[in-house]
Amino acid sequence: MNRYSLNQATTKYWPLEDVVAASAKAELDWIGLWREPVQEYGVERAAKLVADAGLRVSSLCRGGFFTATDDAERRAKIEDNRRAIDEAATLGTDVLVLVSGGLPAGSRDVDGARAMVTDGLAELAPYAGERGVRLAVEPLHPMFCSDRCVVSSLGGALDLAEQFPADQVGVIVDAYHLWWDADVYRQIARAGDRICSYQVSDWIVPLPADNLLGRGMMGDGAIELRRLREACDAAGYDGPVEVEIFNQQLWDAPGQEVFDLAYQRYTEHVA
Amino acid sequence: MNRYSLNQATTKYWPLEDVVAASAKAELDWIGLWREPVQEYGVERAAKLVADAGLRVSSLCRGGFFTATDDAERRAKIEDNRRAIDEAATLGTDVLVLVSGGLPAGSRDVDGARAMVTDGLAELAPYAGERGVRLAVEPLHPMFCSDRCVVSSLGGALDLAEQFPADQVGVIVDAYHLWWDADVYRQIARAGDRICSYQVSDWIVPLPADNLLGRGMMGDGAIELRRLREACDAAGYDGPVEVEIFNQQLWDAPGQEVFDLAYQRYTEHVA
Repeated sequence: MNRYSLNQATTKYWPLEDVVAASAKAELDWIGLWREPVQEYGVERAAKLVADAGLRVSSLCRGGFFTATDDAERRAKIEDNRRAIDEAATLGTDVLVLVSGGLPAGSRDVDGARAMVTDGLAELAPYAGERGVRLAVEPLHPMFCSDRCVVSSLGGALDLAEQFPADQVGVIVDAYHLWWDADVYRQIARAGDRICSYQVSDWIVPLPADNLLGRGMMGDGAIELRRLREACDAAGYDGPVEVEIFNQQLWDAPGQEVFDLAYQRYTEHVA
Repeated sequence: MNRYSLNQATTKYWPLEDVVAASAKAELDWIGLWREPVQEYGVERAAKLVADAGLRVSSLCRGGFFTATDDAERRAKIEDNRRAIDEAATLGTDVLVLVSGGLPAGSRDVDGARAMVTDGLAELAPYAGERGVRLAVEPLHPMFCSDRCVVSSLGGALDLAEQFPADQVGVIVDAYHLWWDADVYRQIARAGDRICSYQVSDWIVPLPADNLLGRGMMGDGAIELRRLREACDAAGYDGPVEVEIFNQQLWDAPGQEVFDLAYQRYTEHVA
């Protein structure tokens, strides 16, 4: 199988049907999906669209955001994650990507926030396992720790994941978020069969004013993308490699152009 | 002794004589200095100014930037670091803060860049030790890894420092750069007598367009500053606590106003 998978967030404004058609035309095996556009299209309808095109869903992004200021908010988030698990199952993917959430409003208690993530996983892991879906904890870059994700390193993600069975909770290795870590190769080896996906983009400077959109096309930045892919392989991961780039310039470009460039750059810098 | 020390970079446009006078008037014991304004004023003259005011220099910022594209550049950087060591000795401080440098232009070899830092330390450590100066490796936040500092965690800094005698090479614990790390308390305990300084500012969002200037005043952000200070104390550190904030709004405010606010916030959130 071809391991390449384009996550639809890379071509954010391109309709789902177009991304699917382009992926099928390129004879790909995988496609990465995002909850909101899939919900808009209809989850079962999206599942049929993808299957009819001969594709499989590499992952569904994303659930998580477990940190909350009160119990009602916490409960609502757990319920939303159950829906996300159901959606992943409907789409036939075994990977639901989870971003943990940042510090609750007004809080500095980062350990407490991490404990909320553990509690959320504990509540959802069996439900996910029964549906053949793994909760894939994604550590985000430390610059997002306060406002988006209190899990900031692969080691930290594994400390959480290892409290649960490996078929219920795993981790995402996203090069953009982890490349700077002097410990990352040791942690990838430690991750082993917890690795649910290897995701790629590139680290470019300067960051834009909205640092959520600072990811570059593979080859334009500082990351040893192939070396990290090989480390995941050596740890036993042989699944899809997902291209996931949040970048306003790429979003504003024609979808097919971005699709072609991403596939070319993947071949040159990752495969 | 009062552990509070204002690093002059916090009031960047305030003349050295004014920062020294304000620190003396507030009956402080310490002041943190920056190489460029000190060179401009004259190193020996600055040493006399500080001593006459009854102050001691908590640290001199900064040397380092060891990563280089060729040998001539590498040699020039080593020589500049020898001068920085001499300046620290003249100022009577035993702490020279080192920022390691980012990836050499066009390189993705982060391990190679880290090896250049090790080589630089190896060349300079005995020279520093003979002059009673410790090379204090400062891990910067991972968002600066590619362009400024390939040492991105306290664990990584200790991996470097521990290759040398503790009286020659130590580390800086800067809350802004390290607070997000789930491993930071374990690493502070590991650091023990390698800790050369505890530096404080706060993590605020959103980051400004120039993310070098994104540090907030203590109390305005997400960091458990007192908890980190107590961890340094428990590891055996009892030296000065340096306030070092790079923030354009604070730089544009009157020096005395920033001085007073920083001291008040230190008392409330750190001491």
